[in-house]
Amino acid sequence: MDMLWSGWGDPAKAAPLPDSVTGLLRDLLGVTPRQTGPRDLDAIEVPSPALTGQARTALRAALAAEDALREDAESRVRHTRGKSTPDLLRIRVGEVDDIPAAVLLPGSHDEVLAVLRACAAHGLSAVPFGGGTSVVGGLSPQTERPFVALDLRRLDRLLAVDEVSRTATLQPGLRGPRAEALLNERGWTLGHFPQSFEWASVGGFAAARSSGQASSGYGRFDEMVLALTVATPEGTLETGRAPRSAAGPDLRQLILGSEGALGVITAVTVRVRPLPRKRVYEGWRFASFEAGTAALRRLAQDGPRPTVLRLSDETETFIGLAQPDAIGSAEAAPPAGCMAVVGYEGTEEDTAARRAAAREVLLACDGEYLGEEPGERWEHGRYNAPYLRDALLDAGAFAETLETAGFWSTLPELYRSVREALTGTLTAAGTPPLVMCHISHTYENGASLYFTVVSAQGEDPVAHWEPVKRAANDAILAAGGTISHHHGVGTDHRDWYAREIGPLGVRLLQAVKAELDPAGVLSPGVLIPVR
Amino acid sequence: MDMLWSGWGDPAKAAPLPDSVTGLLRDLLGVTPRQTGPRDLDAIEVPSPALTGQARTALRAALAAEDALREDAESRVRHTRGKSTPDLLRIRVGEVDDIPAAVLLPGSHDEVLAVLRACAAHGLSAVPFGGGTSVVGGLSPQTERPFVALDLRRLDRLLAVDEVSRTATLQPGLRGPRAEALLNERGWTLGHFPQSFEWASVGGFAAARSSGQASSGYGRFDEMVLALTVATPEGTLETGRAPRSAAGPDLRQLILGSEGALGVITAVTVRVRPLPRKRVYEGWRFASFEAGTAALRRLAQDGPRPTVLRLSDETETFIGLAQPDAIGSAEAAPPAGCMAVVGYEGTEEDTAARRAAAREVLLACDGEYLGEEPGERWEHGRYNAPYLRDALLDAGAFAETLETAGFWSTLPELYRSVREALTGTLTAAGTPPLVMCHISHTYENGASLYFTVVSAQGEDPVAHWEPVKRAANDAILAAGGTISHHHGVGTDHRDWYAREIGPLGVRLLQAVKAELDPAGVLSPGVLIPVR
Repeated sequence: MDMLWSGWGDPAKAAPLPDSVTGLLRDLLGVTPRQTGPRDLDAIEVPSPALTGQARTALRAALAAEDALREDAESRVRHTRGKSTPDLLRIRVGEVDDIPAAVLLPGSHDEVLAVLRACAAHGLSAVPFGGGTSVVGGLSPQTERPFVALDLRRLDRLLAVDEVSRTATLQPGLRGPRAEALLNERGWTLGHFPQSFEWASVGGFAAARSSGQASSGYGRFDEMVLALTVATPEGTLETGRAPRSAAGPDLRQLILGSEGALGVITAVTVRVRPLPRKRVYEGWRFASFEAGTAALRRLAQDGPRPTVLRLSDETETFIGLAQPDAIGSAEAAPPAGCMAVVGYEGTEEDTAARRAAAREVLLACDGEYLGEEPGERWEHGRYNAPYLRDALLDAGAFAETLETAGFWSTLPELYRSVREALTGTLTAAGTPPLVMCHISHTYENGASLYFTVVSAQGEDPVAHWEPVKRAANDAILAAGGTISHHHGVGTDHRDWYAREIGPLGVRLLQAVKAELDPAGVLSPGVLIPVR
Repeated sequence: MDMLWSGWGDPAKAAPLPDSVTGLLRDLLGVTPRQTGPRDLDAIEVPSPALTGQARTALRAALAAEDALREDAESRVRHTRGKSTPDLLRIRVGEVDDIPAAVLLPGSHDEVLAVLRACAAHGLSAVPFGGGTSVVGGLSPQTERPFVALDLRRLDRLLAVDEVSRTATLQPGLRGPRAEALLNERGWTLGHFPQSFEWASVGGFAAARSSGQASSGYGRFDEMVLALTVATPEGTLETGRAPRSAAGPDLRQLILGSEGALGVITAVTVRVRPLPRKRVYEGWRFASFEAGTAALRRLAQDGPRPTVLRLSDETETFIGLAQPDAIGSAEAAPPAGCMAVVGYEGTEEDTAARRAAAREVLLACDGEYLGEEPGERWEHGRYNAPYLRDALLDAGAFAETLETAGFWSTLPELYRSVREALTGTLTAAGTPPLVMCHISHTYENGASLYFTVVSAQGEDPVAHWEPVKRAANDAILAAGGTISHHHGVGTDHRDWYAREIGPLGVRLLQAVKAELDPAGVLSPGVLIPVR
C-alpha cells in the first residue's frame, strides 16, 4: 500500500479531531478552521518529465524490469519531498518544484550501481528513497539538474539469519513491520520501533541514524548495525567483518548518517535479539520535569535499564500528548506534574527483575506509580502522532516537531532555550504556541529532547514557520546541543550541521563525497553543501 | 620514568626465566640460549640529526619550552619504533634505520598545530608518540623524508570532570595509571585496563582503538569516547556534542582508529563510572575450548555480563599463560581442559547479583568452579606478559602475539586456520612452535581471538618471522576475521587492512587524509598506503 500522498500513513486511518480539541485550539491558540483541504492529486500540475531520450535509454538499460522506470505524474508526486510539516503544507497546495523527473525501482545491488553510472554519464542526480518519511528535507536535493528518485522498495528480502551470532542481513527496502514479521517468524526481533516504524525502511533507518521508542533497551539503529554493503558511483563498499575492530576508523559509522549523499545502502547486517515473551508498560508521575529527568538519569546511569523510558514535560503531560489517541477525552484527564512511561520487554524473569529494581529507584526519586493503564494507552497510540498532525493541519492549526540531544549537564539550559526560542518567535509573530517536550532516549551521559509545537498557522504557514525553525536551530547550537538526535540533517538542518562540525568537518565530508561520487550524482545539497 | 629502551616496562622489574621454563623451551621447542643480550644504548651508532637549520629554527619557534626539541642520541633511540617483537629484536642489535631526526615535546594544542604547520613548510613528517607501545609498526613511518617524533607526554592534565553527565576530559599524554589515579581521587574510574595499561597513553588508547581486559563490563575505549579535539595540518577538528546524534556520520569514529595519520588527538572526553567498591575474579574450568566458548557466548548474549571474561584454549591453559607469573611453578599445575577467568566489579550488591546469576549459567554450561585463587593469580600477573617476552627473548626464544575478531559463527574456523597457519609455517621453517590462544573480549555478536606464539628464533629471527606473520594475516582474512581487534593497523597490517576495506575504502581514507593533511606530514604509510 502507498502512503497518503498529502499526509501520513494509511488513508483509511485518518480521523478528524474530537470537538474538544477543536475547542482547545480555538480558545487557547486562536486557530480558525480552514475551508480548504488538500487538492486532488489529479489536479496537481506536474511539469513534463525532464529526462532526455538518451538518459531514458540508459536508465532503461540499467534496469531489468519493464516497469522499473516510471514517469507518470502520480508516481512522481508521490516521490516529491518528505513528511515534514512544510513538506505537507506545500504538497497539499500542489507545489511540486522539487518533483523528480522519474522514479526508478531497482531490483538488485548491481542495478543500483548501473543506475548510478547512468546518472553520472547523463548529468542526472539520484535521491535514494526508502519509506519517504524524511522530516528534514532529505528528499529535496538542491540542484539545477533533473533528478531521479531511487525507490528501493523492491530490495525487500531478508537475506540471511545467523542464529549463532544473532545477526540478520536485510535489504534496505524492507519496511519496519515486514522486517519485523520476517524476523519474528524465526523467533527474533530487531527491537527498532521509531514513530515512523509502519512506513520507514531499513535502509532509511541506517542512512538517517534512526532511534526507536525502545532505544533504552535495544539501542539506536546505528548501534545495531554490524555490516553494510553500499553502492556508490565509484563502485561497491563493504564494511563490517567483526562486531568491533581496531582495524582503522569505523567506516560503518561514516556510512550511517550519510543520508544517501555518499552511497546507496543495499544490505544491512544487524544484531537481532530473541523475541520478548513479555512486554509491560507502566505510567509514573513526577512533580516536575526536573524531578523526572533526575529519575531517568539515575536509571540510565546506575540501572536497571528499562526497555522504554520516556518523560513528558508539564505541558505535554497536561495536553495528554503522551497518549495521542486520548487527547481531549475524559480518559486522558492528566495527573498534575509530569508523566513518564516506563516499559520492560524480555523474558518473564528478566522483566520482572528489572521492573522490581527500577521501581525501587523510581520510588526513591519520588515517582508515583500510576499503574499499567497509562502505559497501555501509550502503546496503543505510539505510532499515531503523525495522523494527529494531519488532523491538526486540516483544522487550520500548525503542528511540527523538532529534537536535539546533549549531555545531562547541558539539558536544562538546552530545554529552556529551545522552548524560549519557539515561544518567543511564534508569539512575536502573533501566533503564541503550545510548546511541549519529552525525553524519549536516554544514555549514561545524556539524553534527547523532543519538542512538539502547535500554533495557529499564520497567513503563509510555510513562510511563517521558517524564522521560528531558524531560531530553534540557533538555540540548539548555542546551548551546546546537536542539531539532531534522530531526525537527521537533510537540507533543512544542513547549515546548522555545518556549524556543528566546523569548516574542517565539512571539508572532510566533501572530500569523501568527491571520492565516492565525483560527478555529484547522489542527493546534492543533502547533508553537506555542494562544494 | 622512561620505559626500558630495548624491551618492556620498568627495567627494575625484569626477571630471568625460571629454570623449569628454560628446560621446557629446550625440551619442547629446541630453544638454545643466546650468548648476547642487547647492546648498550651508548654503543648504538646513531645517524646525525637530519634537520636543516631552517627546520630547526621553525620547530623551535613553534615550541615555547627551551627543552622541547631534542636531538640527542638517547632521546631519538628511545623514540625509534615500538614494542612488537621484531621492533625489539631490531633495536637490541642496534638497528636504528627508523630513527626520528628529533623528538618534540609540545605543551599545548596550539603548539601541536604550530609544529604541524612547521613540518608542512619544511618537508618533514611527524609521528605522534604516546606511550610508544605500538606493536604493529605504528611508529615506523614509511617515508624518505626526515621525521620528528611528536611526544605528547607534556599534555598530561585532567581538564574537566562533569559529575552530572559522568564525563571527563583528558589530555592525550596521560598514561593509564596517572589518568586512573586522577579520576580515582574524585571517585571515578575509566575502567580501561589493557595489558599495556602501565605505559600506554590516553591519546594512544583513542588513536588505536584500544580494548581493556575489563571490556566486557566497561566496553572498549572507542565506546567510551564522547568527544575529541584533533589538531591537523589544516586546523582543528572538534567533534561530539551529545552522547549520540543523528547529525551525519559519526566523525568521532573516523578519528578513533586513525592512528595519528589523520590528526593528533589533543583532548579526549570519555565516559567515567563510579569507582567500584568490590572487585572479585574467579577461575572456571571447561572440558574444551569449544565448550568454554559456548559458555562465554551465552553470557555475552543473554547475560549477566561479567566485567572480565576470558577463556584460554587447551594449550594456553596447559602452559599456564593465563597466569604468566606462575608459569613453570608447581602452583600453576593446570587443570585439564580450558581455564576461564571471570571477574565482577561494581557495588557489593551488583557484583553479588551478577556473580550468582552468571554462576548458574556457567554451571549449566558444564563449567567447573575453581574458586578465587586462579582469578587472583590472573589479576596479579595481568600486566606482566610483556616482561615475560623480554625474558624469553633473552633466553633465545622467539615470542610474539597477534589477534583478530569475528562473529561467533566464524570463530571456530578463524581459530583453526590461524593456528594452522602459525604452526604450519613455523614447523616448515624448522622451528615448530607452541601456539596458544585466548578469548578476552566478547560481544553479543562475536569475540576476539588472541594468539601467543613461542618457538626457537631461527638464524635471523626477524626474517624468520616475516612469512609466518604474513601467513597468519592471510589466514585471518580468508576466514572472515578482521586484521585487528585491538592492536591496530600501523605499517605491519596495512596491506591486509587495505584488502579488508577494499580499494574504495582505501581511496576514501586517502581522500580524508589529503584534505586534512595535504602535505602528507602525519605518519606517512601508517594505516593507509601513501597515495
